[in-house]
Amino acid sequence: MLPIERRKFLTTLSLAGAATLVSGNPLLAATAPKKDKLGIALVGLGYYSTDLLAPALQMTEKCYLAGIVTGTPAKAQQWKAKYKIPDKNIYNYQNFDQIANNPDIDVVYVVLPPSMHREFVVRAANAGKHVFCEKPMAPSVADCEAMIAACQKNKVKLAIGYRCQHDPNIQAVMKVAKEQKFGKVKMITSAAGYFDARTDHWKQKKALGGGVMGDMGVYALQGARLATGEEPIRVIAQASTTRPEIYKEVEETMMFLLDFPSGARAACQTSFGINMNHLQVNYEKGWLKLEPQSSYLGNKGSMSDGTNIDFPIKNQQAKQLDEDCLALMNQTDLIAPGEEGLRDIRVVEAIYQSVRSGQSVKI
Amino acid sequence: MLPIERRKFLTTLSLAGAATLVSGNPLLAATAPKKDKLGIALVGLGYYSTDLLAPALQMTEKCYLAGIVTGTPAKAQQWKAKYKIPDKNIYNYQNFDQIANNPDIDVVYVVLPPSMHREFVVRAANAGKHVFCEKPMAPSVADCEAMIAACQKNKVKLAIGYRCQHDPNIQAVMKVAKEQKFGKVKMITSAAGYFDARTDHWKQKKALGGGVMGDMGVYALQGARLATGEEPIRVIAQASTTRPEIYKEVEETMMFLLDFPSGARAACQTSFGINMNHLQVNYEKGWLKLEPQSSYLGNKGSMSDGTNIDFPIKNQQAKQLDEDCLALMNQTDLIAPGEEGLRDIRVVEAIYQSVRSGQSVKI
Repeated sequence: MLPIERRKFLTTLSLAGAATLVSGNPLLAATAPKKDKLGIALVGLGYYSTDLLAPALQMTEKCYLAGIVTGTPAKAQQWKAKYKIPDKNIYNYQNFDQIANNPDIDVVYVVLPPSMHREFVVRAANAGKHVFCEKPMAPSVADCEAMIAACQKNKVKLAIGYRCQHDPNIQAVMKVAKEQKFGKVKMITSAAGYFDARTDHWKQKKALGGGVMGDMGVYALQGARLATGEEPIRVIAQASTTRPEIYKEVEETMMFLLDFPSGARAACQTSFGINMNHLQVNYEKGWLKLEPQSSYLGNKGSMSDGTNIDFPIKNQQAKQLDEDCLALMNQTDLIAPGEEGLRDIRVVEAIYQSVRSGQSVKI
Repeated sequence: MLPIERRKFLTTLSLAGAATLVSGNPLLAATAPKKDKLGIALVGLGYYSTDLLAPALQMTEKCYLAGIVTGTPAKAQQWKAKYKIPDKNIYNYQNFDQIANNPDIDVVYVVLPPSMHREFVVRAANAGKHVFCEKPMAPSVADCEAMIAACQKNKVKLAIGYRCQHDPNIQAVMKVAKEQKFGKVKMITSAAGYFDARTDHWKQKKALGGGVMGDMGVYALQGARLATGEEPIRVIAQASTTRPEIYKEVEETMMFLLDFPSGARAACQTSFGINMNHLQVNYEKGWLKLEPQSSYLGNKGSMSDGTNIDFPIKNQQAKQLDEDCLALMNQTDLIAPGEEGLRDIRVVEAIYQSVRSGQSVKI
């Protein structure tokens, strides 16, 4: 079952139209001219913005890199030169809220460490901008709920950066579950991890929302959730590390077992110490394998009936950005709205609760 | 690390020689003529004896089907006719102990429900016969220890029917661990299960040693133990069923997470409700996959360096029987002695303890 954002955009539009651009977002003004391409402002210019999103935004058809928000002046200069970004579209964390008055910016894409997601999503929403937010959505369910509420209040849309849900290879897995091609899902093993050699990154700091569970763990979890099309009702989890000198505050490895309402079960593994990325689903009458299951490119697999899963795509992030922007333009449902991010964080919270108690936790 | 039976057979031989055939086992008498083929008596003529072991014993070079022990007179007649077994080599459960006086029988192979293993292994050992015993070795550690002690006391050998350890495809997995071909083992997923449509079998009865953990679960466990060459030190487990009307006394499905001393971790799944049989090992610098991992024939896989694991064998059980008999004849170490069966049952006991407590259990 695809996640569906139920609130209808039409309501937003009619209210916004009546208020003639109160929110600063041209998309919300019925009287504003239609844009061919939406302007995106990236907040946070780390690795993912630099190496993935900015290059993807050179390939997109429905949006372009219109602005940046950074706490590092040197980065602002580099990006300005490289991507010809006008000074008026460059913000820092202090003056960011002035983005409300910038008609070039339709969407703010929050690419900061998870602990900062809530603040910047809420500020972007309050500035009347639609918001894209990287995964994990936030460190807590309370954060996610506050982010969703802020977007609702400001009548802007919120999409979570689940690039894989835009990948036809992952969509093929979801389709098998939805159509019950091989009957019921019985057992899933889902692994996502890589060896991270960094020793002083936000991923290793609890205060910044680090820990493998929110990062790679969400891919392992999505593997199980998307393969069943169900929400887990119980989890038991164990955290561990083989590098305690580096992983002092957060876990290096998390293993968790999920129960789904249909009786399907999943064994999921995630780690910053192990290169692994595979999904295996055993159904009543067949199986499906995907390896890798959450790469940027090259996700592929096979099924027991001989079907191959191998749909090449040009650029996963470009596809995600274009599809999300098209949904905003056409006022259709987003593939992965805030509610979808919240579903994962609800499980992530239960996983940490299970680690603390040593026992299984109902979700 | 291959399991090794440490007690040297030489000790046994010299003692036996001094006592001139006190035990009734010609192999133990230094003065007895050497046999070309050892005589095997199968105890329990269910599916595994009928469809697997008896046919395999038509292909073996170092042993042959010499006798049978059954509680069902009709089966005795069928087997007698089919395999030309002389009346003097046919026993029932009451007169079984008289096998001590039968020089045709060198080895008693116990193929009964697990709850009966201890009794018949001890009786066979007391009769002075070497013993092969099907897996799971027994329902409890205490049973296993009693079986090992009885064989030691009677100076006979005890082999557990771990056919897979005789399979070169599984041995290839063990070799990778031993040689650290891809560095340390980091993560294992190991699954073994099948959909069992039977509703009134010993596998569903607790008193007979049923439950999936001892049956298919031991394959999932062996997958992890053999791939690491280590013994797990901690386990957390969950039992479940999707057919409570059938699985009233024992679990249909067991999922368990293992910790190994090196830091390797394993997620294992086993079920009487799910067709699955796969092993994936992620090492520091590579991976290995085997699927199926515990079939009678056709176990095969691949490694990250392009090496295929695909060693065809004629008959797994025949290979096991011949290799175990050759070890008896040559007085060399058995591949899977009683101590190896005990190692698994120690983990199985901890798994049930974890299910009862809902918490992880040190092993």
